[in-house]
Amino acid sequence: MTLDTLVSEIRKKRSFLCVGLDTDLTKIPEHLLIEDDPVFAFNKAIIDATHTYCVAYKPNVAFYEAQGVNGWRSLEKTIGYLNHYYPKIFTIADAKRGDIGNTAHQYARAFFEDLDFDSITVAPYMGKDSVEPFLTYEGKFTILLALTSNPGAFDFQVNEKEEESLFESVLKTSSEYTHAERLMYVVGATKTEYIKAIRRLVPDSFLLIPGVGAQGGDLKAVCESAMTDQVGILINSSRGIIYASRNTDYAEAAAARARALQEEMAGFLTD
Amino acid sequence: MTLDTLVSEIRKKRSFLCVGLDTDLTKIPEHLLIEDDPVFAFNKAIIDATHTYCVAYKPNVAFYEAQGVNGWRSLEKTIGYLNHYYPKIFTIADAKRGDIGNTAHQYARAFFEDLDFDSITVAPYMGKDSVEPFLTYEGKFTILLALTSNPGAFDFQVNEKEEESLFESVLKTSSEYTHAERLMYVVGATKTEYIKAIRRLVPDSFLLIPGVGAQGGDLKAVCESAMTDQVGILINSSRGIIYASRNTDYAEAAAARARALQEEMAGFLTD
Repeated sequence: MTLDTLVSEIRKKRSFLCVGLDTDLTKIPEHLLIEDDPVFAFNKAIIDATHTYCVAYKPNVAFYEAQGVNGWRSLEKTIGYLNHYYPKIFTIADAKRGDIGNTAHQYARAFFEDLDFDSITVAPYMGKDSVEPFLTYEGKFTILLALTSNPGAFDFQVNEKEEESLFESVLKTSSEYTHAERLMYVVGATKTEYIKAIRRLVPDSFLLIPGVGAQGGDLKAVCESAMTDQVGILINSSRGIIYASRNTDYAEAAAARARALQEEMAGFLTD
Repeated sequence: MTLDTLVSEIRKKRSFLCVGLDTDLTKIPEHLLIEDDPVFAFNKAIIDATHTYCVAYKPNVAFYEAQGVNGWRSLEKTIGYLNHYYPKIFTIADAKRGDIGNTAHQYARAFFEDLDFDSITVAPYMGKDSVEPFLTYEGKFTILLALTSNPGAFDFQVNEKEEESLFESVLKTSSEYTHAERLMYVVGATKTEYIKAIRRLVPDSFLLIPGVGAQGGDLKAVCESAMTDQVGILINSSRGIIYASRNTDYAEAAAARARALQEEMAGFLTD
């Protein structure tokens, strides 16, 4: 997919919502457990109900791996379904991979070729040769962890005592990688105070922002500091949408939550 | 597995060798491709031929994921085979995972419970709450990336301009995590000049050291700077062993390479 297509879909749907498919067998409605593949049945229903209100889906790969071979098959079916029925939806493999050259090539092949995701999240710890193999794919995007939204982000990513925090170093250094135009960044919404600093370093890059609740305040603050004239942000919501109800109305409940977020987002899109 | 068992196996076998199972369909002997599961057939033959000379195996998870459902099944069979036939061998899932609480729990469950690996490699970028879920498992070990052996390690891990490099901060900070006694660290052998600094910060922790060739000089330098009175190191070799020959004698060739390394290592074990 191209960035132009993504931006055009955002403007058409008036939404920059990404729905996180953190699908957990212990949390989906019980009546689905009799299905052959309950995880895929759940994902399919969620996708069919919410696709009008969002522009991206992000399966969290850990939840699939936790189910072994069956989980991997559910992931294959989910991405296959998305690519077949909703080809203009941007897909993100939330895998947070990060390994050296040869291994990074294997991961790139698994997620970009075999599964045909549009993008993958990657951890920057190992540096350039762990990231560039992903960047060789035209029409594919690599979403690098910069500043995450968890408490542990302050262990290493942010260091007030040093002149430059690790997350700033990641933004600066990766901007010099070959095909850096295929980079996006994960930036936690719990740190809006940092977003302006981030925008000075990567003024145009798309940011994938998790951790925004349904509260208008959060969304407003994030949009004001992070949006660009090409939108430049995707906001992810996972459990708040997919587990809105654990009864037979789970898909409708998810759609209602996604729609509420979409309507809020529409207010921040100027044209 | 306990550390005592690992150390006792090292002393018994006079080896601290870890064999990396970076098994790649495009690199294994062609005659295996007619097997139902060529990757498992290859791993099984390599394990049967080399287990006398090593104390650990480390499948690189990327290579299995790259084969999708089939690859995941090969990984399950490989770890199942090791746990059944060679229960005293230390097993490492080289997965370099790193994600927040809930997701880290999913990964821990996949690798420690379902697959029953003794240990997993984890990336520290997201900090404490991405590491501690792995540390809750008694008898399991978490091998944190500290200083890797690839060129990109110098992008973020090492910073000569700052008072403290990121890898030092990772060692110090993680030593304070709950159940830090279940931590080991990945330290690249191409950086022997840093190993003494590392030993000052983590004097007793086991180090998993990749990047040592069959050259005696490398091994000697690493042993002199990194070994503790409880040995404290595992040295990994992957391609140098498993792809020693691409003909029908591949298992014997791998055994010969593993044995040569074991014999070298025996010289550095004092009792």
